[in-house]
Amino acid sequence: MIYITRRERFNAAHRLYRPEYSDEKNLEVFGKCSNPNWHGHNYELFVTVKGEVDEKTGFLVNLKNLSKIIREEVIDKIDHKNINLEVDFMADNMASTENLAIGIWNQLEHKIKQLGAELHCVKIYESENNFVEYFGENR
Amino acid sequence: MIYITRRERFNAAHRLYRPEYSDEKNLEVFGKCSNPNWHGHNYELFVTVKGEVDEKTGFLVNLKNLSKIIREEVIDKIDHKNINLEVDFMADNMASTENLAIGIWNQLEHKIKQLGAELHCVKIYESENNFVEYFGENR
Amino acid sequence: MIYITRRERFNAAHRLYRPEYSDEKNLEVFGKCSNPNWHGHNYELFVTVKGEVDEKTGFLVNLKNLSKIIREEVIDKIDHKNINLEVDFMADNMASTENLAIGIWNQLEHKIKQLGAELHCVKIYESENNFVEYFGENR
Amino acid sequence: MIYITRRERFNAAHRLYRPEYSDEKNLEVFGKCSNPNWHGHNYELFVTVKGEVDEKTGFLVNLKNLSKIIREEVIDKIDHKNINLEVDFMADNMASTENLAIGIWNQLEHKIKQLGAELHCVKIYESENNFVEYFGENR
Amino acid sequence: MIYITRRERFNAAHRLYRPEYSDEKNLEVFGKCSNPNWHGHNYELFVTVKGEVDEKTGFLVNLKNLSKIIREEVIDKIDHKNINLEVDFMADNMASTENLAIGIWNQLEHKIKQLGAELHCVKIYESENNFVEYFGENR
Amino acid sequence: MIYITRRERFNAAHRLYRPEYSDEKNLEVFGKCSNPNWHGHNYELFVTVKGEVDEKTGFLVNLKNLSKIIREEVIDKIDHKNINLEVDFMADNMASTENLAIGIWNQLEHKIKQLGAELHCVKIYESENNFVEYFGENR
Repeated sequence: MIYITRRERFNAAHRLYRPEYSDEKNLEVFGKCSNPNWHGHNYELFVTVKGEVDEKTGFLVNLKNLSKIIREEVIDKIDHKNINLEVDFMADNMASTENLAIGIWNQLEHKIKQLGAELHCVKIYESENNFVEYFGENR
Repeated sequence: MIYITRRERFNAAHRLYRPEYSDEKNLEVFGKCSNPNWHGHNYELFVTVKGEVDEKTGFLVNLKNLSKIIREEVIDKIDHKNINLEVDFMADNMASTENLAIGIWNQLEHKIKQLGAELHCVKIYESENNFVEYFGENR
Repeated sequence: MIYITRRERFNAAHRLYRPEYSDEKNLEVFGKCSNPNWHGHNYELFVTVKGEVDEKTGFLVNLKNLSKIIREEVIDKIDHKNINLEVDFMADNMASTENLAIGIWNQLEHKIKQLGAELHCVKIYESENNFVEYFGENR
Repeated sequence: MIYITRRERFNAAHRLYRPEYSDEKNLEVFGKCSNPNWHGHNYELFVTVKGEVDEKTGFLVNLKNLSKIIREEVIDKIDHKNINLEVDFMADNMASTENLAIGIWNQLEHKIKQLGAELHCVKIYESENNFVEYFGENR
Repeated sequence: MIYITRRERFNAAHRLYRPEYSDEKNLEVFGKCSNPNWHGHNYELFVTVKGEVDEKTGFLVNLKNLSKIIREEVIDKIDHKNINLEVDFMADNMASTENLAIGIWNQLEHKIKQLGAELHCVKIYESENNFVEYFGENR
Repeated sequence: MIYITRRERFNAAHRLYRPEYSDEKNLEVFGKCSNPNWHGHNYELFVTVKGEVDEKTGFLVNLKNLSKIIREEVIDKIDHKNINLEVDFMADNMASTENLAIGIWNQLEHKIKQLGAELHCVKIYESENNFVEYFGENR
């Protein structure tokens, strides 16, 4: 059993707010992240998969294939986009880093199984001081 | 003559486009950065000032004062904001990293003179692969 | 179950030595870290908490609150201080990174429970080549 | 129970290929990594050990001793070498990062037990976008 | 006058030696870098260009075009290659980082002029502890 | 004319204060850095030298020799030391990063000339947010 991690990056706009709250209430709960005119981030995404090493290739998975899945299922749908308005797998969800990690997990889990590996962790840096990890637990 | 650099960070949304262009033309010229629904970045800002070391303190400038100026003149006006819509010193300007560096230079130049130092360079990272430097040349 | 990590930083002086040892013995056991005139580090602290995502906010915890706890319970007590002489939660303890991680865990565990989350890991970088992790195990 | 990690670095050349394949087949399976004239990397190695803190020293292990073991058992044998041709613990193995992690684990496991600690993880960065972790599982 | 820098990366094998020297003499002069079986690095390349900001686009140059030139003139010719054996613009030259910076400058200078900018600096990291800068001086 | 930079690191304790000031006055001027019980940092030092490439070796200088000079003249004298009490080249000087850069320049300038190169810049990071550069100007 071995673990391999691939880093990808995306830039996106978002806003944290609840439509039923006033702007004042949103500011109180979500701080500057509630700005109605949006703000954005350079997100760093780390996808960790686990499984057995293939004796022929020495690979757990071919990283080219892992990277292709992450690009097709996640990066192409979110890079240079507005997370609240344009990302189907985040619709009806607060655009928090926590929900982003869970949303990306759901995008990747089955595709990675088809590669012959198991998704182990989705980790997202929103800034150099904050990151979220999701291991698919309690589902 | 010595140089000291202070790093600050801000997160903001922006869009690169010309209003007189069609969306197609904007896409052709500005690529994904023209997305009408915005995207955003974690910007890193490096402000370098130069001058003489004060013999009493061993400081070129007190970094607390330099940091305060950068926060008041730049960070408070741009952090968690939409550069195209909400940043007065970028009004009527393409929201490119090049123009951002020049705009921030103009915000800081005189205030830093009042500190007893001279602004030497404004450097901005838009992503880990791109940065812009402006030294106030040709003005 | 999701995990969120907050990074904070502090600068401090310390010394590794046992008072009952001679300077020579301390040098033999602790190397340059036993210097009687102290030395110091830029420490990086990563605090990871775990729990359920709140459906209303999309947050596990509000990072502003987590950061406030870490500052009040740890950073304000250790930043720009001498760990051996001035940090009450390290009194009577060797000022090693291992003990620092355990000491910081004890400062944070109950306060984080009051936030509605569970402390998962305290990780401390003493230099770019060394870090310690403590998960509260065997207590 | 506490965990401490030591980072070491090495630079090496390697090639991914199977001798029974044609150059075309190797290119198809291993991409640019199959180049018959070799290529290379700056590898970053993170060795994590776990155990109890010694009350006298405040240490899990003396990092000088841990670093010495890693240098003798790994770095001296692989730094500025050709992994395919010159590294005995990788002989008869594809020179993949996965196999490198397992090979390094086998070099270190017993030596670290002699230090009074237990090897927990070998982590290797091949590039800033890819890393492998091995925890000795399923052996 | 503004400066913009693009980072690109490549992995390559190389060897430092003079064919007229014995292996012992090469070892004495070039150390471990003379290993006849090669070793390699993850090189980081920073290309800085300077010029005026285009008022229409807010760009000094379109980074997509700058990146394309760097890839075609440098990365495609050196990535996953053996610098001594396979890189035409390094033929008949010691494969040192200094010569690499000069060689890459010569590859890029005219192409960047065609973009409407001027090449200012080629900077190459060979490891986290060493980098070379070339500004085209004395030519 | 080419530039090569070598990074070295040291950890040290220091304090910013003037003995003729009261503790209150020192706190007002120097903030937390005036703590009478010291604090400390992981300093990063970048030494840049310039000169011509030697055609035989492809080197500006042999980095092993440059590193040896930096270690002998700077690192061995300051690493794991108290800058105020134990570093002869900082005696009678405020232990600021500005003065540290000038002090290190003076330690290195002549030794590097003996290597056949010219010292160009001493750059010191005191934290990830602050660094000082000295080019030997106005001397």
